[in-house]
Amino acid sequence: MSNALSVEAPEGLPFIDYTREFDAPVEDLFRAHADPELFARWVGPSDLTTELPTYDFTSGGRWRMVQRRGEEEYAFRGTFHTVRENELAVQTFEFEGFPDAVSLEFFTFEQLPGNRSRLVGHAVYPTLEARDGMVSSGMESGLADGYDQLDALLAERAA
Amino acid sequence: MSNALSVEAPEGLPFIDYTREFDAPVEDLFRAHADPELFARWVGPSDLTTELPTYDFTSGGRWRMVQRRGEEEYAFRGTFHTVRENELAVQTFEFEGFPDAVSLEFFTFEQLPGNRSRLVGHAVYPTLEARDGMVSSGMESGLADGYDQLDALLAERAA
Repeated sequence: MSNALSVEAPEGLPFIDYTREFDAPVEDLFRAHADPELFARWVGPSDLTTELPTYDFTSGGRWRMVQRRGEEEYAFRGTFHTVRENELAVQTFEFEGFPDAVSLEFFTFEQLPGNRSRLVGHAVYPTLEARDGMVSSGMESGLADGYDQLDALLAERAA
Repeated sequence: MSNALSVEAPEGLPFIDYTREFDAPVEDLFRAHADPELFARWVGPSDLTTELPTYDFTSGGRWRMVQRRGEEEYAFRGTFHTVRENELAVQTFEFEGFPDAVSLEFFTFEQLPGNRSRLVGHAVYPTLEARDGMVSSGMESGLADGYDQLDALLAERAA
Protein backbone atom coordinates (compact mmCIF):
# COMPACT_ATOMS: atom_id res chain seq x y z
CA MET A 1 0.00 0.00 0.00
CA SER A 2 1.38 3.39 -0.96
CA ASN A 3 0.06 5.08 2.21
CA ALA A 4 1.36 2.52 4.68
CA LEU A 5 1.72 3.44 8.35
CA SER A 6 5.29 3.83 9.59
CA VAL A 7 5.82 3.34 13.34
CA GLU A 8 9.09 3.68 15.24
CA ALA A 9 9.84 3.08 18.93
CA PRO A 10 13.38 4.48 19.28
CA GLU A 11 15.79 2.46 21.42
CA GLY A 12 16.29 3.97 24.87
CA LEU A 13 13.88 6.91 24.44
CA PRO A 14 10.27 6.86 25.78
CA PHE A 15 8.74 7.87 22.44
CA ILE A 16 6.59 6.37 19.72
CA ASP A 17 6.83 8.14 16.36
CA TYR A 18 4.61 7.47 13.42
CA THR A 19 3.72 8.83 10.02
CA ARG A 20 0.83 8.18 7.68
CA GLU A 21 -0.09 9.85 4.39
CA PHE A 22 -3.60 10.30 3.03
CA ASP A 23 -5.09 10.91 -0.41
CA ALA A 24 -7.05 13.89 0.88
CA PRO A 25 -6.33 17.56 1.59
CA VAL A 26 -5.15 18.51 5.08
CA GLU A 27 -8.47 20.23 5.83
CA ASP A 28 -10.32 16.93 5.42
CA LEU A 29 -7.73 15.06 7.49
CA PHE A 30 -8.00 17.64 10.27
CA ARG A 31 -11.83 17.65 10.18
CA ALA A 32 -11.83 13.86 10.59
CA HIS A 33 -10.03 14.43 13.92
CA ALA A 34 -11.94 17.54 15.00
CA ASP A 35 -15.51 16.34 14.45
CA PRO A 36 -16.46 13.74 17.08
CA GLU A 37 -19.02 12.06 14.81
CA LEU A 38 -16.37 11.53 12.12
CA PHE A 39 -13.62 10.62 14.60
CA ALA A 40 -15.75 7.92 16.23
CA ARG A 41 -16.35 6.32 12.84
CA TRP A 42 -12.71 5.55 12.08
CA VAL A 43 -10.54 5.54 15.23
CA GLY A 44 -9.14 2.30 16.58
CA PRO A 45 -9.36 -1.40 15.74
CA SER A 46 -12.11 -2.29 13.26
CA ASP A 47 -13.81 -4.78 15.59
CA LEU A 48 -14.49 -2.14 18.29
CA THR A 49 -17.27 0.41 18.44
CA THR A 50 -16.38 3.88 19.72
CA GLU A 51 -18.37 6.41 21.74
CA LEU A 52 -17.14 9.87 22.72
CA PRO A 53 -19.15 11.03 25.76
CA THR A 54 -16.87 14.10 25.96
CA TYR A 55 -14.94 15.58 23.03
CA ASP A 56 -14.11 19.28 23.20
CA PHE A 57 -11.45 19.51 20.47
CA THR A 58 -10.19 23.00 21.43
CA SER A 59 -7.09 24.25 23.27
CA GLY A 60 -7.79 23.51 26.94
CA GLY A 61 -10.68 21.16 26.20
CA ARG A 62 -11.12 17.60 27.42
CA TRP A 63 -12.13 14.27 25.93
CA ARG A 64 -13.25 10.78 26.94
CA MET A 65 -13.64 7.75 24.67
CA VAL A 66 -15.26 4.36 25.35
CA GLN A 67 -14.63 1.44 23.02
CA ARG A 68 -16.56 -1.83 23.17
CA ARG A 69 -16.29 -5.31 21.69
CA GLY A 70 -19.13 -7.53 22.95
CA GLU A 71 -18.92 -7.44 26.75
CA GLU A 72 -15.45 -5.87 26.77
CA GLU A 73 -15.12 -2.15 27.44
CA TYR A 74 -12.04 0.06 27.23
CA ALA A 75 -12.14 3.69 28.35
CA PHE A 76 -9.61 6.45 27.66
CA ARG A 77 -9.50 10.10 28.63
CA GLY A 78 -7.38 13.21 28.35
CA THR A 79 -7.16 16.91 27.69
CA PHE A 80 -6.38 18.88 24.54
CA HIS A 81 -3.49 21.19 25.40
CA THR A 82 -3.33 22.77 21.93
CA VAL A 83 -5.59 22.58 18.90
CA ARG A 84 -4.54 24.70 15.92
CA GLU A 85 -6.72 24.21 12.84
CA ASN A 86 -5.12 22.17 10.03
CA GLU A 87 -1.76 22.27 11.84
CA LEU A 88 -1.38 20.77 15.29
CA ALA A 89 -3.09 18.96 18.15
CA VAL A 90 -1.37 18.22 21.46
CA GLN A 91 -3.27 16.02 23.89
CA THR A 92 -2.84 13.95 27.00
CA PHE A 93 -3.86 10.29 26.84
CA GLU A 94 -4.66 7.76 29.56
CA PHE A 95 -6.10 4.25 29.39
CA GLU A 96 -8.34 4.13 32.45
CA GLY A 97 -7.50 0.45 32.91
CA PHE A 98 -3.88 1.42 33.58
CA PRO A 99 -4.34 4.64 35.54
CA ASP A 100 -1.74 7.39 35.92
CA ALA A 101 0.48 6.19 33.06
CA VAL A 102 -0.45 9.38 31.23
CA SER A 103 1.22 10.14 27.91
CA LEU A 104 1.45 13.28 25.80
CA GLU A 105 0.69 13.07 22.08
CA PHE A 106 1.60 15.52 19.33
CA PHE A 107 -0.26 15.31 15.99
CA THR A 108 1.11 17.45 13.19
CA PHE A 109 -1.07 17.89 10.09
CA GLU A 110 0.80 18.68 6.87
CA GLN A 111 -0.44 19.58 3.40
CA LEU A 112 1.32 17.68 0.58
CA PRO A 113 1.30 18.42 -3.15
CA GLY A 114 -1.49 16.90 -5.22
CA ASN A 115 -4.21 17.41 -2.59
CA ARG A 116 -2.58 14.88 -0.32
CA SER A 117 -1.65 15.23 3.36
CA ARG A 118 0.51 13.73 6.06
CA LEU A 119 -0.11 13.04 9.74
CA VAL A 120 2.96 12.92 11.97
CA GLY A 121 2.46 11.49 15.47
CA HIS A 122 4.91 11.83 18.38
CA ALA A 123 3.86 10.20 21.65
CA VAL A 124 5.85 10.77 24.84
CA TYR A 125 5.61 8.38 27.81
CA PRO A 126 6.50 8.94 31.48
CA THR A 127 8.77 5.87 31.54
CA LEU A 128 10.43 3.55 29.03
CA GLU A 129 8.34 0.72 30.52
CA ALA A 130 5.09 2.59 29.77
CA ARG A 131 6.24 3.10 26.19
CA ASP A 132 7.17 -0.57 25.81
CA GLY A 133 3.83 -1.58 27.31
CA MET A 134 2.01 0.54 24.73
CA VAL A 135 4.02 -1.04 21.89
CA SER A 136 3.23 -4.57 23.07
CA SER A 137 -0.48 -3.77 23.59
CA GLY A 138 -1.05 -3.97 19.84
CA MET A 139 -1.08 -0.21 19.38
CA GLU A 140 0.43 -0.45 15.90
CA SER A 141 -2.27 -2.71 14.47
CA GLY A 142 -4.96 -0.57 16.12
CA LEU A 143 -3.51 2.53 14.50
CA ALA A 144 -3.17 0.80 11.12
CA ASP A 145 -6.79 -0.43 11.25
CA GLY A 146 -8.00 3.03 12.19
CA TYR A 147 -6.14 4.78 9.40
CA ASP A 148 -7.41 2.26 6.84
CA GLN A 149 -10.93 3.11 8.00
CA LEU A 150 -10.05 6.80 7.76
CA ASP A 151 -8.96 6.24 4.12
CA ALA A 152 -12.40 4.84 3.39
CA LEU A 153 -14.15 7.72 5.19
CA LEU A 154 -12.09 10.34 3.35
CA ALA A 155 -12.77 8.67 -0.03
CA GLU A 156 -16.50 8.53 0.74
CA ARG A 157 -16.61 12.22 1.63
CA ALA A 158 -14.62 13.17 -1.47
CA ALA A 159 -16.99 11.21 -3.73
CA MET B 1 19.30 22.88 54.82
CA SER B 2 17.61 19.64 55.83
CA ASN B 3 14.82 20.09 53.25
CA ALA B 4 17.06 20.83 50.27
CA LEU B 5 15.73 20.40 46.75
CA SER B 6 17.16 17.46 44.82
CA VAL B 7 17.02 17.74 41.01
CA GLU B 8 18.17 15.13 38.51
CA ALA B 9 18.29 15.28 34.69
CA PRO B 10 19.06 11.66 33.76
CA GLU B 11 21.57 11.17 30.93
CA GLY B 12 19.90 10.26 27.65
CA LEU B 13 16.30 10.41 28.91
CA PRO B 14 14.01 13.46 28.39
CA PHE B 15 13.08 13.72 32.06
CA ILE B 16 13.67 16.03 35.00
CA ASP B 17 13.09 14.43 38.41
CA TYR B 18 13.03 16.28 41.68
CA THR B 19 12.19 15.80 45.31
CA ARG B 20 11.58 18.26 48.12
CA GLU B 21 10.45 17.62 51.69
CA PHE B 22 8.42 20.02 53.82
CA ASP B 23 7.83 20.47 57.54
CA ALA B 24 4.08 20.43 57.06
CA PRO B 25 1.40 17.76 56.62
CA VAL B 26 0.54 16.63 53.11
CA GLU B 27 -2.86 18.35 53.28
CA ASP B 28 -1.16 21.74 53.70
CA LEU B 29 1.34 21.00 50.93
CA PHE B 30 -1.47 20.00 48.59
CA ARG B 31 -3.61 23.03 49.50
CA ALA B 32 -0.68 25.33 48.67
CA HIS B 33 -0.85 23.92 45.12
CA ALA B 34 -4.65 23.72 44.84
CA ASP B 35 -5.56 27.24 46.01
CA PRO B 36 -4.59 29.82 43.38
CA GLU B 37 -4.18 32.60 45.96
CA LEU B 38 -1.70 30.50 47.91
CA PHE B 39 0.04 29.11 44.82
CA ALA B 40 0.65 32.60 43.38
CA ARG B 41 2.33 33.64 46.64
CA TRP B 42 5.14 31.09 46.50
CA VAL B 43 5.67 29.72 42.99
CA GLY B 44 8.78 30.66 40.99
CA PRO B 45 11.78 32.91 41.45
CA SER B 46 11.50 35.36 44.35
CA ASP B 47 12.02 38.45 42.17
CA LEU B 48 8.95 37.73 40.00
CA THR B 49 5.32 38.46 40.75
CA THR B 50 2.75 35.87 39.72
CA GLU B 51 -0.83 36.17 38.46
CA LEU B 52 -3.11 33.27 37.63
CA PRO B 53 -5.82 34.51 35.25
CA THR B 54 -7.04 30.90 34.91
CA TYR B 55 -6.50 28.17 37.49
CA ASP B 56 -9.03 25.33 37.56
CA PHE B 57 -7.13 22.78 39.65
CA THR B 58 -9.40 19.82 38.85
CA SER B 59 -9.07 16.81 36.52
CA GLY B 60 -9.66 18.20 33.02
CA GLY B 61 -9.24 21.82 34.11
CA ARG B 62 -6.91 24.40 32.61
CA TRP B 63 -4.50 27.02 33.93
CA ARG B 64 -2.55 30.07 32.80
CA MET B 65 0.14 31.93 34.74
CA VAL B 66 1.78 35.30 34.06
CA GLN B 67 4.99 36.27 35.86
CA ARG B 68 6.48 39.76 35.77
CA ARG B 69 9.73 41.43 36.72
CA GLY B 70 9.64 45.14 35.88
CA GLU B 71 8.85 45.34 32.17
CA GLU B 72 9.54 41.65 31.56
CA GLU B 73 6.61 39.27 31.26
CA TYR B 74 6.62 35.48 31.06
CA ALA B 75 3.42 33.55 30.39
CA PHE B 76 2.79 29.83 30.83
CA ARG B 77 -0.29 27.68 30.27
CA GLY B 78 -1.52 24.12 30.43
CA THR B 79 -4.20 21.67 31.44
CA PHE B 80 -4.65 19.54 34.53
CA HIS B 81 -5.07 15.97 33.33
CA THR B 82 -5.48 14.53 36.84
CA VAL B 83 -5.95 16.11 40.24
CA ARG B 84 -6.41 13.68 43.16
CA GLU B 85 -6.56 15.38 46.54
CA ASN B 86 -3.44 15.00 48.71
CA GLU B 87 -2.02 12.45 46.23
CA LEU B 88 -1.36 13.42 42.64
CA ALA B 89 -1.49 16.17 40.04
CA VAL B 90 -0.64 15.59 36.36
CA GLN B 91 -0.48 18.69 34.18
CA THR B 92 0.74 19.90 30.83
CA PHE B 93 3.12 22.86 30.81
CA GLU B 94 4.11 25.30 28.06
CA PHE B 95 6.15 28.50 28.15
CA GLU B 96 4.32 30.70 25.65
CA GLY B 97 7.64 32.27 24.63
CA PHE B 98 8.75 28.87 23.30
CA PRO B 99 5.50 27.54 21.85
CA ASP B 100 4.66 23.88 21.22
CA ALA B 101 7.49 22.52 23.40
CA VAL B 102 4.82 21.16 25.71
CA SER B 103 5.86 19.01 28.65
CA LEU B 104 3.94 16.74 31.00
CA GLU B 105 4.49 17.06 34.75
CA PHE B 106 3.63 14.57 37.49
CA PHE B 107 3.48 15.83 41.10
CA THR B 108 3.14 13.14 43.76
CA PHE B 109 2.24 14.30 47.29
CA GLU B 110 3.36 11.97 50.09
CA GLN B 111 2.70 12.06 53.81
CA LEU B 112 5.80 11.46 55.96
CA PRO B 113 6.03 10.62 59.67
CA GLY B 114 6.13 13.53 62.11
CA ASN B 115 3.63 15.70 60.22
CA ARG B 116 6.06 16.13 57.37
CA SER B 117 5.50 15.60 53.64
CA ARG B 118 7.33 15.05 50.39
CA LEU B 119 6.72 16.36 46.88
CA VAL B 120 8.07 14.22 44.03
CA GLY B 121 8.17 15.84 40.59
CA HIS B 122 8.64 14.01 37.28
CA ALA B 123 8.65 16.17 34.15
CA VAL B 124 8.62 14.60 30.69
CA TYR B 125 9.76 16.53 27.59
CA PRO B 126 9.01 15.88 23.91
CA THR B 127 12.74 15.89 23.01
CA LEU B 128 16.07 15.65 24.83
CA GLU B 129 16.81 19.16 23.53
CA ALA B 130 13.68 20.58 25.16
CA ARG B 131 14.69 18.95 28.45
CA ASP B 132 18.23 20.33 28.20
CA GLY B 133 16.85 23.77 27.36
CA MET B 134 14.69 23.70 30.48
CA VAL B 135 17.68 22.70 32.63
CA SER B 136 19.81 25.54 31.25
CA SER B 137 16.98 28.09 31.64
CA GLY B 138 17.63 28.25 35.39
CA MET B 139 14.69 26.02 36.25
CA GLU B 140 16.48 24.56 39.28
CA SER B 141 17.08 27.89 41.00
CA GLY B 142 13.51 28.96 40.20
CA LEU B 143 12.19 25.79 41.82
CA ALA B 144 14.50 26.17 44.81
CA ASP B 145 13.42 29.80 45.32
CA GLY B 146 9.77 28.85 45.08
CA TYR B 147 10.02 26.01 47.57
CA ASP B 148 11.88 28.23 50.05
CA GLN B 149 8.98 30.67 49.78
CA LEU B 150 6.57 27.76 50.23
CA ASP B 151 8.42 26.81 53.46
CA ALA B 152 7.76 30.32 54.77
CA LEU B 153 4.10 30.22 53.72
CA LEU B 154 3.55 26.81 55.35
CA ALA B 155 5.25 27.98 58.58
CA GLU B 156 3.11 31.12 58.63
CA ARG B 157 -0.09 29.12 58.22
CA ALA B 158 0.93 26.63 60.89
CA ALA B 159 1.67 29.44 63.39
